[in-house]
Amino acid sequence: MSDVHDLTRALQKKNESKIVLLVADGLGGLPQKPGDLTELETAKTPNLDALAQRGTSGLSTPVLPGITSGSGPGHLGLFGYDPLQYQIGRGVLEALGIDFELGPDDVAIRGNFCTLDEHGNITDRRAGRIGNDIAAPLCEKLNKIKIPGIEVFVQHVKEYRLVVVFRGPGLGGDVHDTDPQKTGVPPLVPEAKAPGSEKTIEVAHQFLQQARDILKNDSPANFLTLRGIAKRPPIPTFEEVYGTRAGAIAVYPMYRGLARLVGMDVLDAGQTLSDQCDRLKAAWDDYDFFFMHFKYTDSTGEDGNFEAKVQRTEELDAAIPRIMEQDPTVLIVTGDHCTPSKMKSHSWHPVPTLITAENCRFDGRPGFSEKDCLLGGLGQFEAKHLMLMALAHAGRLEKFGA
Amino acid sequence: MSDVHDLTRALQKKNESKIVLLVADGLGGLPQKPGDLTELETAKTPNLDALAQRGTSGLSTPVLPGITSGSGPGHLGLFGYDPLQYQIGRGVLEALGIDFELGPDDVAIRGNFCTLDEHGNITDRRAGRIGNDIAAPLCEKLNKIKIPGIEVFVQHVKEYRLVVVFRGPGLGGDVHDTDPQKTGVPPLVPEAKAPGSEKTIEVAHQFLQQARDILKNDSPANFLTLRGIAKRPPIPTFEEVYGTRAGAIAVYPMYRGLARLVGMDVLDAGQTLSDQCDRLKAAWDDYDFFFMHFKYTDSTGEDGNFEAKVQRTEELDAAIPRIMEQDPTVLIVTGDHCTPSKMKSHSWHPVPTLITAENCRFDGRPGFSEKDCLLGGLGQFEAKHLMLMALAHAGRLEKFGA
Repeated sequence: MSDVHDLTRALQKKNESKIVLLVADGLGGLPQKPGDLTELETAKTPNLDALAQRGTSGLSTPVLPGITSGSGPGHLGLFGYDPLQYQIGRGVLEALGIDFELGPDDVAIRGNFCTLDEHGNITDRRAGRIGNDIAAPLCEKLNKIKIPGIEVFVQHVKEYRLVVVFRGPGLGGDVHDTDPQKTGVPPLVPEAKAPGSEKTIEVAHQFLQQARDILKNDSPANFLTLRGIAKRPPIPTFEEVYGTRAGAIAVYPMYRGLARLVGMDVLDAGQTLSDQCDRLKAAWDDYDFFFMHFKYTDSTGEDGNFEAKVQRTEELDAAIPRIMEQDPTVLIVTGDHCTPSKMKSHSWHPVPTLITAENCRFDGRPGFSEKDCLLGGLGQFEAKHLMLMALAHAGRLEKFGA
Repeated sequence: MSDVHDLTRALQKKNESKIVLLVADGLGGLPQKPGDLTELETAKTPNLDALAQRGTSGLSTPVLPGITSGSGPGHLGLFGYDPLQYQIGRGVLEALGIDFELGPDDVAIRGNFCTLDEHGNITDRRAGRIGNDIAAPLCEKLNKIKIPGIEVFVQHVKEYRLVVVFRGPGLGGDVHDTDPQKTGVPPLVPEAKAPGSEKTIEVAHQFLQQARDILKNDSPANFLTLRGIAKRPPIPTFEEVYGTRAGAIAVYPMYRGLARLVGMDVLDAGQTLSDQCDRLKAAWDDYDFFFMHFKYTDSTGEDGNFEAKVQRTEELDAAIPRIMEQDPTVLIVTGDHCTPSKMKSHSWHPVPTLITAENCRFDGRPGFSEKDCLLGGLGQFEAKHLMLMALAHAGRLEKFGA
């Protein structure tokens, strides 16, 4: 019984508890220089501080120390799935990011429009970064491609980027990219990484042949490359491994998609955190577990905008009373990874995390910050164990052994 | 070399050191409300505090974060055996709990007397919770059952509960319960969970057939069900993996049994902690390692009696000078899991742990409590690594690599 989910399957217990997992994307940060405060330490967060005073806090490691996590592994970890065991291909993430409902047999591909010269060599791997106005109609043309026995979907993402999905029986996902990663050479032909993807390669050939013909007069976007070819991994559902009915309240498609991957119901989240709180209230009786996602602590960090991240953190804090109105049995506030505005990117630093519940071992920390979490009762822990603690504090796990 | 015991086998070293592992069952707790003190923080523990001041402390996770451990896995972890790798069946624990000396080929079973109606359907799964006065003589009758080539032992536990042991070559332990978990239906027939238990099933059939005949006029206890059918897992001995001769000084049978499972000698412990200290003194020259078990920090927690747990903690504290009289090289004080009186049950919270030895990295904590341990030098660690630290502080491990 080395898999945590073998344990949760064996120990799960039903009750009337309600768990809310509030993920502030990219929550933790860095001070601008030694001795300064982080974004979270700078923000005025009276509601989070009050939770910390009657809860327990700690620092979560998304994947491994020193490993900077993307949103996919970051969220899988928070959902209790080992991010090193359940790896999600880029094509799948790209499809999730446009709210495409991927089935278990679909092969998802990230496409890039590119420019070919008269010899068929690539001169621009991004087709001059064409605008949406040009790319979207081209995707509509490609979406009409027919391949016998296979459904083909082509959807525009942004600028030169698109998603291609092949749906049909017997398609494998182990196929190399056709992007040669340089110019002056032709696109690569689809080749297998491992056995079992012969049919996908044949389908990709036919797709590219038709695409070449369709796009031949659309220079600079007169062809496309296929990247991150992948199927969604087989992931056991939340309901199966934890015995909880889970609802996701996320504004951005990527996070709705990640929730869908683990079998959560994806609820209408509106556009704002306030809309999300309304949805939480309306759906309260329908689920045992709610995943709420707040994007802007990440995007402001990515922008390198310290002040904006502080302000967005305060916006998050202001929503806490709306959530507490529902009187959740367990409320967890955490992030999927840190996004320090100093770095303008995701980082590997451990993520501030807070649990409030009746049977917390209160650790007496006065507030919610990186420094407080460092001294908090949860210590430093692997994100994939957070769900065990959520279930424990909700009384949803039986004792292990006698 | 993924197994910790491969390391200890390779690195173990003999010397004259003495290690005492004092397990206060269910040691850690919770405050009644935020800001209040736990049982351990409330108790006056001058002796433990003095040890903390010249030792190092931390918090031990018995199995995994959020997992509430039973006594079996809790103790195996403290003894350095991964509790997820070495799982002990209910029948085995029940047999250990009555001091039955289980051999490696024995199949142990937890039996429940039950009531059958004239159609053979169960009307009461606990036979009206008959008293010991009725059940004990019935167990004596069942103990006379003979099966060719097999030794059969039947021993009464309490009320409607008994232990059945089959001893003989070729018996497997992968057999389903015969308790259908409901009334109005007949008991189930023994069936295999996995190959290798065919002979056990045949023996169980014969046993149940004879039992039905023996008990037929003993309504309400006119039959029994078999549950938790299991063999003890093959566990390498303390002597083999650590090179220490170990003696167990425990009053309760379950803990004597767990010590026996890992090959400790089980010593006469008397009835009180004072008796146990006498035994420690008397046996001091005979062993390298002593496991002492104190039950009442758990049982008072299970009773939900905060004050009584405080008092029992003070009783534990008072025994420390008796142990220190022997001048152990290493003294460890810990628990197998927490039993907060607030929860009246075992819990998942990490367990206060203290090591004193000449080469501790003293962490300057002023006392022994959950809060002190949170800031202690051992940090938060997995219980299965405690034995490595015990051996290290005793100078009983060679350097790993050159």
